[in-house]
Amino acid sequence: MIFGGVESGGTKWILAVGSSPDDLDDVTTIPTTTPRETLERVGEFFDRHSEIAAVGIGSFGPIDLREGSPRYGTITTTPKPGWSNTSVGGFLRSRLNVPVVVDTDVNAAALGEGRWGAAGDVDSFCYITIGTGIGGGVVVHGEAVHGLLHPEIGHMRIPHDVARDPFAGTCPYHGDCFEGLASGEALRARFGRDPAGVRDEEAWGLEAEYIALGLMNVVSTLSPQRIILGGGVMNETTLLPCVRRRLTDLAAGYFDAAELSAPGIDSFVVTPALADRSGVCGALELARRASSDSRGGCAAPA
Amino acid sequence: MIFGGVESGGTKWILAVGSSPDDLDDVTTIPTTTPRETLERVGEFFDRHSEIAAVGIGSFGPIDLREGSPRYGTITTTPKPGWSNTSVGGFLRSRLNVPVVVDTDVNAAALGEGRWGAAGDVDSFCYITIGTGIGGGVVVHGEAVHGLLHPEIGHMRIPHDVARDPFAGTCPYHGDCFEGLASGEALRARFGRDPAGVRDEEAWGLEAEYIALGLMNVVSTLSPQRIILGGGVMNETTLLPCVRRRLTDLAAGYFDAAELSAPGIDSFVVTPALADRSGVCGALELARRASSDSRGGCAAPA
Repeated sequence: MIFGGVESGGTKWILAVGSSPDDLDDVTTIPTTTPRETLERVGEFFDRHSEIAAVGIGSFGPIDLREGSPRYGTITTTPKPGWSNTSVGGFLRSRLNVPVVVDTDVNAAALGEGRWGAAGDVDSFCYITIGTGIGGGVVVHGEAVHGLLHPEIGHMRIPHDVARDPFAGTCPYHGDCFEGLASGEALRARFGRDPAGVRDEEAWGLEAEYIALGLMNVVSTLSPQRIILGGGVMNETTLLPCVRRRLTDLAAGYFDAAELSAPGIDSFVVTPALADRSGVCGALELARRASSDSRGGCAAPA
Repeated sequence: MIFGGVESGGTKWILAVGSSPDDLDDVTTIPTTTPRETLERVGEFFDRHSEIAAVGIGSFGPIDLREGSPRYGTITTTPKPGWSNTSVGGFLRSRLNVPVVVDTDVNAAALGEGRWGAAGDVDSFCYITIGTGIGGGVVVHGEAVHGLLHPEIGHMRIPHDVARDPFAGTCPYHGDCFEGLASGEALRARFGRDPAGVRDEEAWGLEAEYIALGLMNVVSTLSPQRIILGGGVMNETTLLPCVRRRLTDLAAGYFDAAELSAPGIDSFVVTPALADRSGVCGALELARRASSDSRGGCAAPA
């Protein structure tokens, strides 16, 4: 079966039609403009693909994912101008003649990595992106976690030694939460420029420390079998080994698991196998699940 | 059907036989002495109850819960003298002629509250105890979360303003982690005495702040539909309203959920409905699940 996938982001949307990462019939990227214009272009893209059985959307958020809610698929409190209260799911459910299912961009990416990527051999894991913002998708027992709303890993609170780092953080809601201290936006504010290519060993050491603290809290609350760490900030290749080392330091031998010390940590905190297509491929997986299970829940992979 | 339940703690074990909190045929409490003596007494207790179909154990930990592990049901790195590497599950599996299933004390308590208590109407929630230590049981989609090991919510890292609070924390592994700052043991070290009845508004305000920070991280990572907050420290009745208020302050309107502001918070952060029997009743529920599902997984309540 052929599905449609949408990864919606604050600057661009990726649209795809296909059945797997190796079998994509059509992939296109459109810029994020106004909600009306962007969503209309998504509709036009899928109009050209009558073969699709369902559409999955991995969306930036926060987003209302409560099935049965009149606001299902609606982006809620985003700082992205013009996009608060946009019903991405509602619009596409009305516009398209196939089932449409919505999840967060990071839950979709996690499902994609679980189906075809770096988490194919485990059933409880996280996909965390350190990009413009910080987000985390969580899969437990093979299903994406929603709960009250959905995980918002970027907004957890972590230790912040203001004597060492007086930076106030960039989160408009929480100041120096994880995202406020360690996102790409935070780095841009720290450096006064795009962080890519900045050579500042101390600043990157601090960044690795914050990411490791965030992961320590993910380990403590969720006990994932693996953490997939993506997002543009991780393109700084010195970061990952530092994050792994600091996480083992923080764990301090408390957890009886080879994965939380060297060398096991190298297969515990890993990069996405689908690179920048985790999200849109995960959206295809969302669509597959929606069409094989009316709950949008956890059907075994075909 | 009649089941056996064990809640094992660092100072006492509660043993029960029955089918529900309202139908307990036999309940007894024994002191935690040596592993051999304590486990032998558990065996003798169940020898008197040939009617039981299975035994569930909610144990202090950390504990190896990997089904198929040769160390299944073994307490690993506990600071409790003499108890490291004690195979609670292995001993009772050999000793008793019925299925024996082990989970953490807090996962058991969560399952008990989910079956008969404060979380009967939701399927993703946490039971957090602020007692001698801090622990958290996590249920997602009706099943207790294990993952790599099991959640260790007490060992997450939270902000610690050393200018306001120079206390170094009591965790032998992590110093000022959540448990190191806010457990009953931490309070005892702060106050130099049993914290019960201490009148020190500032210290209790700080305690509420740390608990709220811990809950903020639980909300951010797990997005539970409810948090049940138990443990001896919560007997200080001024704490709960303070924790609720600080958690809504920390959430700061970011989450689009009535549960994370007043008055919704009062039904989001709640006390255990089974009081001090959440754990042992949850152990009965563990046993019921073990006998109705060979995975020990999520069978629907009868």
